[in-house]
Amino acid sequence: MKPLGPIPEGFVAIDGELAIAGRKASDLVAEAGRTPLFVYARERLDARVAALRAAMPDRLAIHYAVKANPFAPLLAHMAGLVDGFDVASGGELALVEAAGIDPAKVSFAGPGKRDAELELAIAKGVTLNLESVREAERALEIAGKIGVTPRLAIRVNPDFDLKGSGMKMGGGAKPFGIDADKVPALARRLVDAGADWRGFHIFAGSQALDAAAIIETQAQTLALAARLAEEAGVTVPKCNLGGGFGIPYFPGDKPLDLAAVGNALAERFADLPAVLRDTAFCIELGRFLVGESGVYLTRVIDRKQSHGEIFLVTDGGLHHQLAASGNFGTVVRRNYPSAIATRFDAPVEEEASVVGCLCTPLDRLAEKGGFPRAEEGDLVAVFCAGAYGASASPVHFLGQGPAAEVLI
Amino acid sequence: MKPLGPIPEGFVAIDGELAIAGRKASDLVAEAGRTPLFVYARERLDARVAALRAAMPDRLAIHYAVKANPFAPLLAHMAGLVDGFDVASGGELALVEAAGIDPAKVSFAGPGKRDAELELAIAKGVTLNLESVREAERALEIAGKIGVTPRLAIRVNPDFDLKGSGMKMGGGAKPFGIDADKVPALARRLVDAGADWRGFHIFAGSQALDAAAIIETQAQTLALAARLAEEAGVTVPKCNLGGGFGIPYFPGDKPLDLAAVGNALAERFADLPAVLRDTAFCIELGRFLVGESGVYLTRVIDRKQSHGEIFLVTDGGLHHQLAASGNFGTVVRRNYPSAIATRFDAPVEEEASVVGCLCTPLDRLAEKGGFPRAEEGDLVAVFCAGAYGASASPVHFLGQGPAAEVLI
Repeated sequence: MKPLGPIPEGFVAIDGELAIAGRKASDLVAEAGRTPLFVYARERLDARVAALRAAMPDRLAIHYAVKANPFAPLLAHMAGLVDGFDVASGGELALVEAAGIDPAKVSFAGPGKRDAELELAIAKGVTLNLESVREAERALEIAGKIGVTPRLAIRVNPDFDLKGSGMKMGGGAKPFGIDADKVPALARRLVDAGADWRGFHIFAGSQALDAAAIIETQAQTLALAARLAEEAGVTVPKCNLGGGFGIPYFPGDKPLDLAAVGNALAERFADLPAVLRDTAFCIELGRFLVGESGVYLTRVIDRKQSHGEIFLVTDGGLHHQLAASGNFGTVVRRNYPSAIATRFDAPVEEEASVVGCLCTPLDRLAEKGGFPRAEEGDLVAVFCAGAYGASASPVHFLGQGPAAEVLI
Repeated sequence: MKPLGPIPEGFVAIDGELAIAGRKASDLVAEAGRTPLFVYARERLDARVAALRAAMPDRLAIHYAVKANPFAPLLAHMAGLVDGFDVASGGELALVEAAGIDPAKVSFAGPGKRDAELELAIAKGVTLNLESVREAERALEIAGKIGVTPRLAIRVNPDFDLKGSGMKMGGGAKPFGIDADKVPALARRLVDAGADWRGFHIFAGSQALDAAAIIETQAQTLALAARLAEEAGVTVPKCNLGGGFGIPYFPGDKPLDLAAVGNALAERFADLPAVLRDTAFCIELGRFLVGESGVYLTRVIDRKQSHGEIFLVTDGGLHHQLAASGNFGTVVRRNYPSAIATRFDAPVEEEASVVGCLCTPLDRLAEKGGFPRAEEGDLVAVFCAGAYGASASPVHFLGQGPAAEVLI
C-alpha cells in the first residue's frame, strides 16, 4: 500500500459523506448536475487569507497570482480579500478586469510579453514587471507611442534560490527576470526616461514548506533590493518579495510555519535599510491562498480487478488533474490526498488504485492507496485541487471535455 | 550543447527558410495571421499511409486512433486514407461523425465509458472494445433497453508487453482491457447473449522503434487471439493487433524498419491457425500516421542572456507542446527536433535554449541546443508536432490561449 497525501484540516463527514463547507459531496454533485466537479469553498479562502494577515506584518500587502486558479467567481471573491493581483498574460488581465478588479491593483510578469500585451497593460495602468532590458525598451517605446506614462518595475533574477522549493525561479541562468548585475543601470534608465518607477519584483521559488528557507530568502531579497536601489540611486516605491509559501501535498509534508515567517519578517521590517524605509511591500501567492480550498469530485464508473489489483475507474482524470496524476514537473510520482467521498468516515478496507477514464497508463489519481471498499457510483475526492487543476491540465485530451466548477 | 532530436526526412529550405509542403514557414504564418501555428501537411499524411500499405500485407486494415490528433480537417483527410477509426470518448465519436465518417467504421476503447456513451455508441453501430466484465454487462443491458444488437469486441489485457515501448499498455495489472483468463467465458457469454460478436482488441504498448520487438509482440498477439478463441469456442471476425509503431523524437532514435515488420506479419498471415483463417485484421495507429506530418511554428519575442546563457523566449510553449517540454510521461527531459525556421539552412552558431512564454521553469521547448543566431521576430520550428500536441496540452494555462492549426 502506498501512502496518500495529508487531507487538509477541517474536512468532516455528514451522514458518512465528505462535507465541503457544510454541504455533502453528493448534494453538491446533484446541484451541479454532473461529475467531475471542482468545488471551491469561500470559507476556506476567507480563513486562509485571515490566517495569513494575522501572521504577517500589517505592512505586507497580499497579492493573488491569478495563474493558480482563474475561475471567474473565485477571482471575484478574491477581489474582496487581497490587495492586488498578478497576471501572466493578456488573457489573465482580461479575466481580472471581467471580475471587476481595478487594473491599477494589477501587476504583469511573464517572460514573453507580446507588443499588444504591453500596450494593453500600459494603457490600463497595470504595473509591468520587466523581464529583460529589451522588454524595457519595448515598453518605453510603446508608452511613448500611445502617450501614457508606463508603470514599470524590474523583475530581478536573484543570485540565490529558495531552498527546498518545488520550483526554483532564481539562482543562475533563468529565462525569468533580469540578472542582478544589469538591474541598477536599467532602473536608472527607467527613472530618467520618465517612467512611473514602481520598484522591484524578486521571485526566488515556489512551493516551499520550510519556514527557515523562506525566512532566509526574504532576508536575501530585502538585502538585494536595498543594494540594487543604492547602486542605482533610486527609491523603491514597491517591492514584491515573491511567493514561495507551499501547501502539503504528499505523505510526510507538514504545513508551513506561518507564524515563524511572519515574525521574522516583522523583525526585518523593524530594521530596514534607509533606502527601503518608505517602500510598500507585498507578497504574491497563488497556490497557498487557494490550493486547499478546492476538492475535485469524480464518480466511480467501474470497479475492476486485474491480476489481483483493484482499479477504481472514474469519469475524471489527468485532463483535469495533470499535476495530481504526477505528470507535471514531477520526477517520482506520489499520491495527492484523496478519499472515497461517499464513505468518508469508513475505515480502510482494501488497497486500490484510482484511475481516470483516459486510455493512457499516465492517468492515475491515486496509486495503491488504502480506501474503504468503493463501488460503482461512489464519489472519489482529490484534495488540494484549488490550484493548478482545471486550468493547468490538458482539457481537450481524448475529447472528454471540461469538469464543472463551482464556488460555494 | 545538448543534442536535438532528428528532423524528419524531406524538409528543405526555400530562400533559406524551412518549407512545409513547398510553402515557406513565414508565408504560412502570414496566411494564418498569427503564431503559434501548427501546420499539418497532407502530402506527409498521404506518403506515410502509402508507405505503410506498401510494407504491410494487403489483408491488414489500417485504423487511425483519433486521440493522436482530432483536428477536424485532418480527420476528414484521414477518412480518405484509412479503413477505420478508433475513438476514446463520446467527444471523439462526435468529432468523427462531424468529419462525415461512417460510425460502422469506428471502434471505441477506453476504461471509463459512461452509460450515455455506451448507449450512443451502440445506437450508432460503433464497435465497443469492452474493458471489463462489468462494462460488458452494462453494454448488453443498454442494448436490450434500446433494442439494438450491439457490436461488441473484447479488449484483452495481454500477459505480455511491447518491449522497448514508450508506453506499456499490457503485461500485469492494468486498468485497460480484460485479463486473458477471464476472456473466454466472456466471449462465450457475448455470443450466447446474441451480440454482434466482433472479436478481439489486443494492445500491448505504443511508441516502439524496435522492429524485432513489434514482430515478437504481433506473433504473441496472434497466438493469444487464437488460444482465447479456441478456449471460448468462438470465431474471430475481427482482430485489432493494437499499434505500437513509434516515430523518432530524440537524439539517436532511428525510424522503425517497416519492411521488416510487414514481411514478418505477411509470413504469419500465410501460416495462421485455423481459428484465425477468416479473421479480418487491423492495426490501430495514431502517432505513427500523423506525428511527423506536423510542425509547430512559434515566434521569438525576446532574445536574452542570463549568466552567459542565451534564451530565445517565444510566444509558444508547453500550453501547446506539453510533451515536447518534457512534462508528459517523461522521466529525463530530452530535446525534440527543432530549428530556427527562418534560418533553416544556416550553420550552427551558438548554444541557446528555446523557452515558452509561460512563467514557469517547466516551459522549455529546446534546452541548450545548437542553432544559428536567432533574433526577435525569427520563427522557431518544433518538429514531430502532428500528434499529441494541441489537444494533449494544458491550453488554458496562464491564459495564453490556443495555437492556430492549419492543414495544407
